[in-house]
Amino acid sequence: MNLILIHQHEPDSEGLVRLAGERAEHIRGVLKASHGKTLRIGLLNGPKGRGTVESVSGKEVVLRCEFEEKIPPQPTVDLLLALPRPKVMKRLWAQIAALGVGRIIIANAGKVERYYFDSHVLEPDFYNARLIEGLQQAGDTLLPEVRIIKELKPFLEDELNSVFPMSGKKLLADPSGEQNVFQALEKAEAANILIAVGPEGGWTPYELELFAAHGFRVFNAGPRILRADTACVALLSQLTLRSGANEK
Amino acid sequence: MNLILIHQHEPDSEGLVRLAGERAEHIRGVLKASHGKTLRIGLLNGPKGRGTVESVSGKEVVLRCEFEEKIPPQPTVDLLLALPRPKVMKRLWAQIAALGVGRIIIANAGKVERYYFDSHVLEPDFYNARLIEGLQQAGDTLLPEVRIIKELKPFLEDELNSVFPMSGKKLLADPSGEQNVFQALEKAEAANILIAVGPEGGWTPYELELFAAHGFRVFNAGPRILRADTACVALLSQLTLRSGANEK
Repeated sequence: MNLILIHQHEPDSEGLVRLAGERAEHIRGVLKASHGKTLRIGLLNGPKGRGTVESVSGKEVVLRCEFEEKIPPQPTVDLLLALPRPKVMKRLWAQIAALGVGRIIIANAGKVERYYFDSHVLEPDFYNARLIEGLQQAGDTLLPEVRIIKELKPFLEDELNSVFPMSGKKLLADPSGEQNVFQALEKAEAANILIAVGPEGGWTPYELELFAAHGFRVFNAGPRILRADTACVALLSQLTLRSGANEK
Repeated sequence: MNLILIHQHEPDSEGLVRLAGERAEHIRGVLKASHGKTLRIGLLNGPKGRGTVESVSGKEVVLRCEFEEKIPPQPTVDLLLALPRPKVMKRLWAQIAALGVGRIIIANAGKVERYYFDSHVLEPDFYNARLIEGLQQAGDTLLPEVRIIKELKPFLEDELNSVFPMSGKKLLADPSGEQNVFQALEKAEAANILIAVGPEGGWTPYELELFAAHGFRVFNAGPRILRADTACVALLSQLTLRSGANEK
């Protein structure tokens, strides 16, 4: 936990927040913070700031919060991910949030097993807790928006344009691509990017056509076939290297 | 399993191999292969090839192996990793192998808990099985060499030069770096690279000096603080983007 996230409703009118549970335990047990110590905090979907420890007890930790004026910039990368096995998805939420993504669109695909969608890993309480864990690790405050899409075609046809800006770049990782991710970006490096990552076994030819018809450009993520979680982390971190994206 | 790895001692003099256990289950249950079907195989630390199914029974699967002449090229990246929590390390072996690394040097550091070194995740039987899992996922045959280093200083002073070529580039990820990974590589993009990834909480100032004294150049992996497993996958995949590294 490199930053302690405070929910918007938690501070009282004097800027005091009373923490119990995991965050209090972290402050007591890991940071070993006592009265007067300042900690890195952030307001969920708001600015970062400093929390000064007012009191620590077995029951709660009280922080006095001061927030910066500026809210961190929105991530410029969105992710469309064919739902991997629940066990893999479970671990992936925090990693995606740590890498910094604006929207996470979890989609169905021909090679996704239908029953994966019944998993508790797709319940908002579950994934929001994991996403917040990733933000607290990475020192960010902006909670990714999550969409669960059980039908890919109507989503691409009817909703994609309202979710993702028309001016953005849509990319799809597939071994059939001849360019690497930067070549596919064609110097539009600072634009919003939506990156589609397929299921184990890849997209079907029909799905590849569907994506192409909706403006997705195919790129090749390299000769090695990566598991969905490794592929996601790999591709998102490659995108942070494009110019303009790596500034502090 | 995108490639089934065969150990060097397994094929008999006629090129037949009898598989039981996990590989046989995969061939029966996932690939649903029957007599005559050819499968992608590889010889551990040897060439890739094709295995033709001779017979399938509940007890075993018999493949006739034909291997290519050429052994896949050695990865040009080595990894020096401060040992993360065993739970994280457990998941990381397969991911590192999938991304393609020549050597994995697991090291102690000031901010590594000593008891981590007692974990079963550092036993060769455990990690070799996970590494092979990663190779089978990625379609590679070259098993990374693993070294476990409990004392960083004597390793850097006495052993590093015999393990890693003097002509190679040594890089270390730390927030104090001013360059990104490509800037730090200084166009030596095709060289052998050894990349050092620190523990949660980072390297100590003493360790940073020690690495600098042994030719490691510091680079900045971006403003976000990543968990060790995410950081490893992120950095290794960024290196695959350097020119010359992404060829098939």
